[in-house]
Amino acid sequence: MAVDRHILWDSLGMDLETHDQLCAVLPQAFGDVFLSQENRPEGMAFWDMVVADVHGIRPQELVDEQAKGRKVFGTFCTYVPDEVVIAGDGIVTGLCGGSQFWVPEGEKYLPADMCPLIKASLGARLGRTCPFFRIVDQIVGETTCDGKKKMYEIMAEDVPMYIMNLPHMKRPQDIAAFADEIALFKANVEEVTGNEITAEKLAESIKIINERRKALARVFETRKNKDVIPISGTDALLMMQIAFFDDPVRCAQMANNLAAELEQRLVDGVSVFPKGTKRILLTGTPLAIPNWKLHHIIETAGAAIVCEENCTGTKFFTNLVDESQTTLEGMYQALAERYMKINCACFTPNKARIDEVLQLVKDYNVDGVINTNLKFCTTFKTEAPALEKVLEEAGIPVLDIETDYTDNDAGQLRTRVEAFVEMLG
Amino acid sequence: MAVDRHILWDSLGMDLETHDQLCAVLPQAFGDVFLSQENRPEGMAFWDMVVADVHGIRPQELVDEQAKGRKVFGTFCTYVPDEVVIAGDGIVTGLCGGSQFWVPEGEKYLPADMCPLIKASLGARLGRTCPFFRIVDQIVGETTCDGKKKMYEIMAEDVPMYIMNLPHMKRPQDIAAFADEIALFKANVEEVTGNEITAEKLAESIKIINERRKALARVFETRKNKDVIPISGTDALLMMQIAFFDDPVRCAQMANNLAAELEQRLVDGVSVFPKGTKRILLTGTPLAIPNWKLHHIIETAGAAIVCEENCTGTKFFTNLVDESQTTLEGMYQALAERYMKINCACFTPNKARIDEVLQLVKDYNVDGVINTNLKFCTTFKTEAPALEKVLEEAGIPVLDIETDYTDNDAGQLRTRVEAFVEMLG
Ligand code: SF4
Ligand code: SF4
Ligand code: SF4
Ligand code: SF4
Repeated sequence: MAVDRHILWDSLGMDLETHDQLCAVLPQAFGDVFLSQENRPEGMAFWDMVVADVHGIRPQELVDEQAKGRKVFGTFCTYVPDEVVIAGDGIVTGLCGGSQFWVPEGEKYLPADMCPLIKASLGARLGRTCPFFRIVDQIVGETTCDGKKKMYEIMAEDVPMYIMNLPHMKRPQDIAAFADEIALFKANVEEVTGNEITAEKLAESIKIINERRKALARVFETRKNKDVIPISGTDALLMMQIAFFDDPVRCAQMANNLAAELEQRLVDGVSVFPKGTKRILLTGTPLAIPNWKLHHIIETAGAAIVCEENCTGTKFFTNLVDESQTTLEGMYQALAERYMKINCACFTPNKARIDEVLQLVKDYNVDGVINTNLKFCTTFKTEAPALEKVLEEAGIPVLDIETDYTDNDAGQLRTRVEAFVEMLG
Repeated sequence: MAVDRHILWDSLGMDLETHDQLCAVLPQAFGDVFLSQENRPEGMAFWDMVVADVHGIRPQELVDEQAKGRKVFGTFCTYVPDEVVIAGDGIVTGLCGGSQFWVPEGEKYLPADMCPLIKASLGARLGRTCPFFRIVDQIVGETTCDGKKKMYEIMAEDVPMYIMNLPHMKRPQDIAAFADEIALFKANVEEVTGNEITAEKLAESIKIINERRKALARVFETRKNKDVIPISGTDALLMMQIAFFDDPVRCAQMANNLAAELEQRLVDGVSVFPKGTKRILLTGTPLAIPNWKLHHIIETAGAAIVCEENCTGTKFFTNLVDESQTTLEGMYQALAERYMKINCACFTPNKARIDEVLQLVKDYNVDGVINTNLKFCTTFKTEAPALEKVLEEAGIPVLDIETDYTDNDAGQLRTRVEAFVEMLG
């Protein structure tokens, strides 16, 4: 770390001593997982740099922007429309916690038998050990799963919180209701930022986020090639994780640069895995930064992850928002229609997810699916058997993994993954 | 059991052998908990009779009504408006499973780390060991907690299922959305029953259900008396549990009879507990029949339960539906307004529950609160600390109990409850 960030962190009211413990372990974890890989795309240098100073570079940018009067919105769900925040000249940063480091602090306020993502997120805020959680002017929650919804009530005691009511079904009236909810959110963003959101501004931000979607999808497109695997799943995941808190225009630019390099690799036949490496699709709960556990285990067990069907994967960029609308109302509806296509297990029914996974299995030439579930995530866990049944009926081998953020089960998981990969043949 | 019900059960496609095991243990459980009590109100004879033949009397009635063309709707939540079903000349029966007997069957299809009420409910249906679950023509689910919502998807493979989308907030637009949802449900009931629901019919059924609410509230009213406790909590709970599947007019009549007797007891000073017995308010997750575990432990540990603030208690009957509406739309809105006053932890925020518990503590002259949570119920568990903090600040002792349907923790719970009661003084 070139710059000493302690002045920044101190100004954010962070618990420096505890935070230093996190800073002491992250580089090692990052090195073990990422730098040990061979033949990485050069385009990854950008994300390596970001993560090497993950609590410095971007937080400093955000603080600088705040000094100019801009507002920062923290989010926890791919259903919260970035477009609206950006249209009000606000900045969005994803906040989901992906490290065990924050879990014990979260467990002071939350049931132990709750998903680690939720516990880590509350722990990061209340323990004051994450600069992003300190910087945000407002957090935007949503009524998705029980745990997040109720966690927000506790977080609201400590930070300004705005909640969007998400319908849990996807009938036409639910999509209309979500459009109404987006209109309310627009009013909230206007209030927080002090900036009026016009149809022109929203149209512009819809384009910006669509460009980000296209760029990320372009990277994923290169992972479909059945002979050459131009990028590891671990690297692709890092790009996705950082997309949640980076500037969307820069994100698109960096992803496009990377995609160009990967496209060339396809032409040149440059693969990061030996020919014949088994191709895995990972589906299930999101993998918030720095949760690299499963990717690392799978990709050091002789398999390659070629697609993540989750909110830190395809769900983040699949489907564009219709850009032809000219009125705010038309755009709310267009946004609602795009977002309501995200096949999250919090919705009922969620059969479209099964169809989507089947399609991705074909598109990405997948040999086997690993369905992963964060411990105590009821929604994804309960729909898992139905998904796995359909996959098995289609002749796709499936491995079901439930895990949390600790390393306690790493050995056992490695054994299971190795057996699965071996079985793939 | 006077009548042999095996012909009925067989005709319902039940698993007779397994069900006989349940029949073999229920009378003993009932005897231990209920018949051991002294000086019970005579009015309890009705409910004793119902429960003595719980899988016979009412199921036979339902089958007889079905033979006449009526339809039976099964429900799992106090948010599903009985009024609409009754307006279509349908019959409502609550289905929530309250026995460990059904849990292992449910765990074949559901995560083990899920609330026992949900596992028992699915187990009772799929294991074919409950006549009510066999009789229903349609089940009405709702998007409340994660577990129920996703369980319904599995149940829907086996039985016609209709889902109501419940908002998770309580702003005016959410109440309006629930009114719209009630209108949709009306169309569903019309379709299933083949009967048109007119404004007159709905107005009539609103009155019927209001009368049931008033009768149950009248019984509870007698439990507020600070000198005389005319009925045990255990008996009051049984009345409430059976209210979910009895005919609403008969329920009101029986509750009114009981209330009259209890009112006389207040005049005569007839108490089922010695003077000075500590008065407990129980709050938290619902207690589905035959879940009498905590009531039995508490009331044999020297305390009396004088109020249940849950869905098998005050939440079921508090607040009447406005009877002055004359149009269907007016009634949908009136229904939505009444139902949305139920302070369920599935909503965010749910601060009104705290105010309600504080008020009930005063109204029922309560000495201590026991906050109970079914294991893995995330919503109620996450809001528990906030509730308990306010109670403690108000000087009300609180005991927090998390339990399931097994008897494994009965000894430990008894020790904790006894210590709590002793501490009350
Ligand atoms: S999995 Fe569902 S709740 Fe979680 S971020 Fe994705 S859409 Fe939101
Ligand atoms: S992984 Fe599951 S429990 Fe955890 S935040 Fe996402 S939806 Fe909620
Ligand atoms: S506790 Fe909530 S979800 Fe359960 S029956 Fe009551 S209102 Fe419905
Ligand atoms: S007790 Fe909790 S988890 Fe169980 S059904 Fe009710 S709300 Fe859901």
